[in-house]
Amino acid sequence: MTHDVLRITHDLRSMTYDLRLPVLALAGGVGGAKLAHGLAMSLPAGSLSVVVNTGDDFKLWGLHISPDLDTVMYTLSGLANRAQGWGLEGDTTKGMEMLARYGIDSWFMLGDMDLSTHLLRTYLLNEGRTLTEITSQLAASLGIQSAILPMCNEPVETFVQTPNGLLDFQTYFVAHKHADNVSGVVLKGIEDATPTPEVLSAIEQAQTIVLCPSNPFVSIGPILRVPGMLNAIKASSAHKVAVSPIVGGAALKGPAAAMLASMGHEVSPVGVAQLYQGVIDRMIIDRLDESYVPHIEALGMTAEIADTIMKSDDDRRALAERVLDLRS
Amino acid sequence: MTHDVLRITHDLRSMTYDLRLPVLALAGGVGGAKLAHGLAMSLPAGSLSVVVNTGDDFKLWGLHISPDLDTVMYTLSGLANRAQGWGLEGDTTKGMEMLARYGIDSWFMLGDMDLSTHLLRTYLLNEGRTLTEITSQLAASLGIQSAILPMCNEPVETFVQTPNGLLDFQTYFVAHKHADNVSGVVLKGIEDATPTPEVLSAIEQAQTIVLCPSNPFVSIGPILRVPGMLNAIKASSAHKVAVSPIVGGAALKGPAAAMLASMGHEVSPVGVAQLYQGVIDRMIIDRLDESYVPHIEALGMTAEIADTIMKSDDDRRALAERVLDLRS
Repeated sequence: MTHDVLRITHDLRSMTYDLRLPVLALAGGVGGAKLAHGLAMSLPAGSLSVVVNTGDDFKLWGLHISPDLDTVMYTLSGLANRAQGWGLEGDTTKGMEMLARYGIDSWFMLGDMDLSTHLLRTYLLNEGRTLTEITSQLAASLGIQSAILPMCNEPVETFVQTPNGLLDFQTYFVAHKHADNVSGVVLKGIEDATPTPEVLSAIEQAQTIVLCPSNPFVSIGPILRVPGMLNAIKASSAHKVAVSPIVGGAALKGPAAAMLASMGHEVSPVGVAQLYQGVIDRMIIDRLDESYVPHIEALGMTAEIADTIMKSDDDRRALAERVLDLRS
Repeated sequence: MTHDVLRITHDLRSMTYDLRLPVLALAGGVGGAKLAHGLAMSLPAGSLSVVVNTGDDFKLWGLHISPDLDTVMYTLSGLANRAQGWGLEGDTTKGMEMLARYGIDSWFMLGDMDLSTHLLRTYLLNEGRTLTEITSQLAASLGIQSAILPMCNEPVETFVQTPNGLLDFQTYFVAHKHADNVSGVVLKGIEDATPTPEVLSAIEQAQTIVLCPSNPFVSIGPILRVPGMLNAIKASSAHKVAVSPIVGGAALKGPAAAMLASMGHEVSPVGVAQLYQGVIDRMIIDRLDESYVPHIEALGMTAEIADTIMKSDDDRRALAERVLDLRS
């Protein structure tokens, strides 16, 4: 519905590509949001849907916080703080300073503008609206012409198994700065989650499905592990392409490389390709990792070289166009 | 308990008055908070309790907002925005600007720092803490050495009867800028409210009870109308003194004068004294209203002249000392 409205109202002069080529991207936080932004810039309005991980959603002082949804929404709206990747450009921390006066430990930083997002989302959830409806409304208010779709409306909680026991994701990721050795990922509630009708419809319509360069265990993994999601993707006749989040043996951001190692995988695009084997038919890796092409192709997919480090909008757009096979 | 702790830890050099003279003030918003501040500055730490109206508490985007508690707390902590009377000095409105981006109408202005107070209060209420406990904790965090006591822990909602029907208080007061003609005040939930043990204990111990220059209908009125409150005050042997919120035929702030007129009372300190007849034994009126002294004394109370307009801290302290009869 929203989709159709957006198609009708978008600027016709931007229609450089075929409207009949819907693209679906699976994304987590910063890296995924950058490529999603590139895709949004490269495609006509209304032809991109982004399915976003909500497995690291959590509650803080009663607020429902969806870090990945927010990062994607802020990035696609052009409001993101580009230097840090997450949060809003020009945001301030007056609210947190006041909480500190009240003796509240503020290990998770929330800006004053960012807080309004959580406040409004929480209010609307408590009014009985779904996360999908709310995300659609917030994104439309910010002028976003792509569909940002939570992977599910049910709560899923990510925990990581460490030598110090099971840690909830934000404690591991933010408070511990992902320094713990991770031997496993537990997704509480995942068995009761279902892909939303909006997600299933987007998968069904997609002619290209993109696994963005997000963490395969705690960003893309939770999306694929929503019961029914993987089968729906496998059943789709879309081209399926992943961009490696590992470049030159490291993750550009976050704990993906450390997790590959600690969970017994090769710390390279090959390790990622093995995780996605049977799902994707094409893998894009960085120029730095060119030597891995034959190893990846041995897994039954094509491998291609691109510049995958996205610093500018032009980088984002260029990588998106490679992903969409528009320059080949 | 807290009271005793404060008594022990306060600075002994400030003990210019008798510690055995506990004072209780009844207060609403700005005017009441100023006199309460004067009393707090004039008394040794721990000897002042302020019972605050919570009848205009309301919910906004799921947040529990207690305008009068906040005004008293911010004023007593020295953090208040002195120019506007309410809110916090140096507060910003980034959060509201973001809400506006989301299309949210922001008729009620909330600063970024102020929002943290509501967020924390709401969170603690949802955790099962009482408004009394929460207020005590927040006030202590801000270094306040007086007891700030909500009039009750139960929700009470103030509505005003107008030619346009029954309006909730914030719609009348903020959105309509108290322009409607008020023919009556309805306090929903008041019959199920009870004075808290802390309030009853403070009344029992008080040697002086002060009705601050707050609105008699929507600030002091709701406090006195909590079932059992008026009887407890009447049963107390304390000196009971009110300061007129009406000066020269007008209210210094808010709709008190308009309400006196529209509800058929004299718009003068006499009109206020009639409302408090049988409760107080002493009324303090402004120098401007000196001619009303005989009319007030005819009601069976003494009337005294003072400078009641509090612009500076010295004004607040001077009026407090007159109220406490320390200069007579």
